[in-house]
Amino acid sequence: MDTEVPLTTSPDMQSCSVEPLLEPDGYPLAGRSRIRADTVIQLPSLQMGDGGFAIIAGPCAIESYEQFRETVIALKALGIRLIRGGAFKPRTSPYSFQGLHHEGLAIIAQVKAETGLAFVTELMSPELVEDVVAVADAVQIGSRNMQNFPLLRAAGHLSKPVLLKRGFGNTLHELLMAAEYVMNEGNEQVMLCERGIRTFDPAQRNTLDLMAAPILKSVTHLPVIVDPSHALGKREFVPAAIKAALAVGADGVLVEVHPQPEAALVDGRQSITPETLSLLLAELRGLADVLGREIF
Amino acid sequence: MDTEVPLTTSPDMQSCSVEPLLEPDGYPLAGRSRIRADTVIQLPSLQMGDGGFAIIAGPCAIESYEQFRETVIALKALGIRLIRGGAFKPRTSPYSFQGLHHEGLAIIAQVKAETGLAFVTELMSPELVEDVVAVADAVQIGSRNMQNFPLLRAAGHLSKPVLLKRGFGNTLHELLMAAEYVMNEGNEQVMLCERGIRTFDPAQRNTLDLMAAPILKSVTHLPVIVDPSHALGKREFVPAAIKAALAVGADGVLVEVHPQPEAALVDGRQSITPETLSLLLAELRGLADVLGREIF
Amino acid sequence: MDTEVPLTTSPDMQSCSVEPLLEPDGYPLAGRSRIRADTVIQLPSLQMGDGGFAIIAGPCAIESYEQFRETVIALKALGIRLIRGGAFKPRTSPYSFQGLHHEGLAIIAQVKAETGLAFVTELMSPELVEDVVAVADAVQIGSRNMQNFPLLRAAGHLSKPVLLKRGFGNTLHELLMAAEYVMNEGNEQVMLCERGIRTFDPAQRNTLDLMAAPILKSVTHLPVIVDPSHALGKREFVPAAIKAALAVGADGVLVEVHPQPEAALVDGRQSITPETLSLLLAELRGLADVLGREIF
Amino acid sequence: MDTEVPLTTSPDMQSCSVEPLLEPDGYPLAGRSRIRADTVIQLPSLQMGDGGFAIIAGPCAIESYEQFRETVIALKALGIRLIRGGAFKPRTSPYSFQGLHHEGLAIIAQVKAETGLAFVTELMSPELVEDVVAVADAVQIGSRNMQNFPLLRAAGHLSKPVLLKRGFGNTLHELLMAAEYVMNEGNEQVMLCERGIRTFDPAQRNTLDLMAAPILKSVTHLPVIVDPSHALGKREFVPAAIKAALAVGADGVLVEVHPQPEAALVDGRQSITPETLSLLLAELRGLADVLGREIF
Repeated sequence: MDTEVPLTTSPDMQSCSVEPLLEPDGYPLAGRSRIRADTVIQLPSLQMGDGGFAIIAGPCAIESYEQFRETVIALKALGIRLIRGGAFKPRTSPYSFQGLHHEGLAIIAQVKAETGLAFVTELMSPELVEDVVAVADAVQIGSRNMQNFPLLRAAGHLSKPVLLKRGFGNTLHELLMAAEYVMNEGNEQVMLCERGIRTFDPAQRNTLDLMAAPILKSVTHLPVIVDPSHALGKREFVPAAIKAALAVGADGVLVEVHPQPEAALVDGRQSITPETLSLLLAELRGLADVLGREIF
Repeated sequence: MDTEVPLTTSPDMQSCSVEPLLEPDGYPLAGRSRIRADTVIQLPSLQMGDGGFAIIAGPCAIESYEQFRETVIALKALGIRLIRGGAFKPRTSPYSFQGLHHEGLAIIAQVKAETGLAFVTELMSPELVEDVVAVADAVQIGSRNMQNFPLLRAAGHLSKPVLLKRGFGNTLHELLMAAEYVMNEGNEQVMLCERGIRTFDPAQRNTLDLMAAPILKSVTHLPVIVDPSHALGKREFVPAAIKAALAVGADGVLVEVHPQPEAALVDGRQSITPETLSLLLAELRGLADVLGREIF
Repeated sequence: MDTEVPLTTSPDMQSCSVEPLLEPDGYPLAGRSRIRADTVIQLPSLQMGDGGFAIIAGPCAIESYEQFRETVIALKALGIRLIRGGAFKPRTSPYSFQGLHHEGLAIIAQVKAETGLAFVTELMSPELVEDVVAVADAVQIGSRNMQNFPLLRAAGHLSKPVLLKRGFGNTLHELLMAAEYVMNEGNEQVMLCERGIRTFDPAQRNTLDLMAAPILKSVTHLPVIVDPSHALGKREFVPAAIKAALAVGADGVLVEVHPQPEAALVDGRQSITPETLSLLLAELRGLADVLGREIF
Repeated sequence: MDTEVPLTTSPDMQSCSVEPLLEPDGYPLAGRSRIRADTVIQLPSLQMGDGGFAIIAGPCAIESYEQFRETVIALKALGIRLIRGGAFKPRTSPYSFQGLHHEGLAIIAQVKAETGLAFVTELMSPELVEDVVAVADAVQIGSRNMQNFPLLRAAGHLSKPVLLKRGFGNTLHELLMAAEYVMNEGNEQVMLCERGIRTFDPAQRNTLDLMAAPILKSVTHLPVIVDPSHALGKREFVPAAIKAALAVGADGVLVEVHPQPEAALVDGRQSITPETLSLLLAELRGLADVLGREIF
C-alpha cells in the first residue's frame, strides 16, 4: 500500500485544549478581518442582514395541509415574508412524532404556490438535499447537526442560503467554525442562529444567550438571528425575547406561530398565536423606529 | 443533656433532589400568590418597581475620593439618582485589591453630602451592618453571598432596601428562596438582580441570563434588575444589554461607569464612560416612550 | 395532494420540557425492564459486558502505516485485543487535520491482516457504511454525532457492534434514547461510552462524568465504557481515570496510546505510551482480582 | 477626609476575565512550588494526607442524641476514627430543617466524651467560631460558603484543621484561592473537598468531579478528599464513588451514614447504612493493598 501520505505537521493539525478567544481574524471566511461589511443574504421575498429586522415565523412542525396553509395565510396577512416549518423533525426519542417527511415537503410546495412567500425548512441528511432544495428558499441546519460535518459540507454546495443553528452544547467559536465548513465549500450565504444553550438552571428549557448576537456580530460579517421559542418553552416569554433580540442588534428572529397552540403536535406550549404576533409587530415597529431600523 | 428535641417530621424537612418548578405559590413571601401587585421599593431619590426603568450607575470599586466624586458628579449631570460603588470588594484571590473598606464608606458619606444622591454599596459581613447602613441607602448582597444565610438574615433586620444579586452558580429558584430568607426576618424591601451565570462558553465571562427578568417577574412581585457589566467583561456590549434589559421588562440596571476606564483598579475593561452613558440614555428614553415606560 | 395524513395525537407526540427521570422502563429496548441480564457484545477477539474489563487502545488518529503498525504491535504484546484508531476525524475547524480517510481504512485492513486483532473506527456518514464495515469489527459513533439520527438509523442496520459515544452536551437520558434509535432498526449490539461533558470549569477540557457508568448500568443492560483521554487532555491523569472506571463498574475503557506522543498529529498531549499502559495493566489486574473481575 | 489612599496599581489589582490555568506556582501558599511534600493534617485520632485513605463518616444532620450516638457507636465498631455530623445546616429554603444548632453541638460534645473519637462539623458564621471550636476537632466550611471571605479569614485564625468544600458553582482555581484566604491568615491545616458541581444533566443532583482529586493534588500539597453523598443523591451509587475516590488517589472520603436512612430528617435517600459501609470497607482494604495504601 501507499504509505507516502502527504502529511504536514503544521500547527493547524494540533488539537487545542484551550478555547480560542473570539477574534475577527480567527475565521478566514466568516471573520470581519476579511470582509468588513455585513453580508446580505438574498431571499426571494426579502434580504437578511441589511440593517432590517426580519421576522421568520411559522409552526414548529408541519402537521397537515390545512394547519400549515391556515398559519401561512394568517402570517402573510401580518406582512411576514419568510415562513418556517419543519417537515423532518429531529427528536430525542425515536418513538416521538418525526414530522411528515416528504409529505411535509409537498405541503410546503403547495402552500408556496398558493401564497408566493419564501420558506425555510430543515435539512437533516445529505441525501435529502435535492428534495429539500426543490421546495425550500433557505435550508436550516438544526442544533443537533451543527457539527455534522458531512452535512455542513453538503450545505456548502447549495446555491441557497443556509440558516445554521447553534448547537445547544456548542460555543460561539464552534458555531463560527461550523460556518467555515459551509463557506469553505463555496456557499457564503450563511445566517447564524442562537437558540439557547444548556446550563444548570431548569427555569428555561435552554438558557437563551441573547448576548451571543452582538458578540458574534463583532467578529463576523454574517447575519445573526435569534430563535427564542424552543429555549423558553413557554409562549408568554417569547414576545419579550423578540424585543430583546431587536434591542441587542440581531438581524431577525425565528418564531413559532400556531393558530391553535394547544392542539399542536409538537411544542405547542411555546407557540404564539397570529394575534399575539400582530400585537408584537406593532410594538416592534415602534422600537425599530427609535433604533433607525425596519421590521419586515 | 436534654434530648427532647422538638422536631417534627413534616415534608419541609426533607431534602429535595429535583429542582422545583418556578410557581408563584412556591414562595410564601416573595411569590405572587400572596401579593399580586408589584412591590415598589422606596429610596430617597427614586422608586424602584413602579413601572419605571432605573439606571443605577457608578464605578465597580471606590478607588479614591477624587475618582468617586468626579464619577458621581458626571452621573448626576446625566440625571442618575442612585449610585453604586464598592467599598468592600469580594475577590477570588486574597492578594487582589479588596476595596478601601471603611475609607471607602467615608468617601461615600462625603460624596453623598456633596451631591445629595442615593447610594448602594455591598455588605459582606453581618458585623459591618452598622457601618454600611450608616452611609448606604440600599445594601447590596453580592453574588458569592447569595446563600450566605446568616448574612441574609442580618439583611432581613435592616430598615433599608436590599439589592440581592443572583449567585453565578445559582438557579432562579434559589434566588427566590434567598429573598425568602431576607423577607422572613421582616425586611420586604428586596430587589433581585441577574448578573450572569456560569456556563461552558467562555465568550462571556458569565452568560447574561436576560430572560431571568421576565421569568422572575412572572413569579414574584419584587423588582428585578440586571447587571450586565461583569458578565460581559467588555464595555462595547454593555449598551446592547441595557437596551435588552429594558425590552424584556426589567425594572432597571446596575452599570459600571468610570471616567477613565483604562485606569480603573478593578474591571476597567467592562466600564463605560459617562459619555457613552449619555448617548445610551437618549436611546433608552426613545425606546421607553414606545413601551410606555420612563427612564430615571 | 393527499391531506389525509395518518396522525395520531398520542402523548408520544408531545414535546417534553422536563428531562425525564432515568428509569429502567423509560427505554423500551435499552432499558432493564425488558432485558434484565447484561447484554454481551461479541467481537472476534473478545466479549464486552460479560463482567470483564476491556482495554480498547490505540492512537487517536491513524497517521501512517508505520505509526499505526508500531502502535498495534506494541499493544498486542501487552495483551490488548481490540484496537481503536481514527481514519475519519471530526474536527471543529475545517482547516485542521481530518484523518487519512480511505487511506486510513486501508492501513487498518493491512495491520489487521498482519496482527489478527479486532478494530473499532469511527463512522461519520451513512454513505461510508460499506467502506468502514469492510474493515471494522465495531463501528464508533462520535460525540458530535450522538444525535445525528440518520446516522444512528444507518448504524442500526449493521451486523456489527456499535460503540456510541455520549455527546459532550447531552444528558444520559439522551444517550439512552440514541441507543434506542440504533436498536429500533434491529441492531442490539450497542456499547455506550462516557467521554466527558461540558461544564464551567476549564480544569479539564471536558469534565469526565465517571459516575455515568454505574448510573447507566442501573438503567440499561448495555455495556458501558469510559474514554478518559480527550476529556482530561493531559496524559498524567489518564491512569487514575482508568482505575476509577474499573472501580465504578464500567465494562472497559477506550484509551489513546501513541509510541511518541509528542510527535502525534492529533491530541498527543493526552496519549499515554505503551510503557505507561504496561505498568497500568499490572495495577489494574491487581485491582480486578479484588473486585472479582478480569482485565483483557 | 484623608484621600491619601495607599494604592498601588500592580497587576494583582486588575481583574482577570480568563480563568488562569492551574499551575503549582499560581498559589503562593497552597501550591507545590513552595512546598513540594504533601501536607499532613494532624487530628487527635488520625492523620490525613500521609498516603492513607481516611473514611470520615456520619449522618448528614444530627437529629437527636440517640440517633447520633447509635450511629457513632456503629461507626466506631467499624474502625472509623473521624465522625461528621451537622449541627448547623445551610438549607436553600428558610422553611426547611436547619439543624439543631447549639443543641447539636452539645450532642457532639456528649458523644465525643463517650466514644473518644474525633469530630468535624460545619462553621456557618464567624460569630459561632468559639462554640464550634469548643467541640469540633476539625471545622468544615460548606459549599455555599466557599467564597464567604470573612468566614475564610476567621477559619484562618483557628488552631484546628479546616475542611474546605468546593462550591458547586466554583472552579478548582477558585477552590485553591479560597484555601489561600485561610492559609494567608496563618492556618495551613486545610483539606480540600470535592462534592459535585452544577451541570446540565439532572442524572445526578450535582455531577461528581472525581478527577478533581488528582488534578488538585498535582498542583497543591494539601490533602484532597471526596464527598459523594449529596452529589449522587442515591445511596446505591455511593460505594462505587468511594472506590473510585481511592482509585484516583484522593486522601479520603466524607460519607453520609445513617442507621435508618428512610427515617432521616435530611437527605436519607443518599445515606448508606453501617452494614453497607462494613461490606465496602472490606473491599476498600483489598483495593488499598494493591495500591500500597491503608484504609482508616
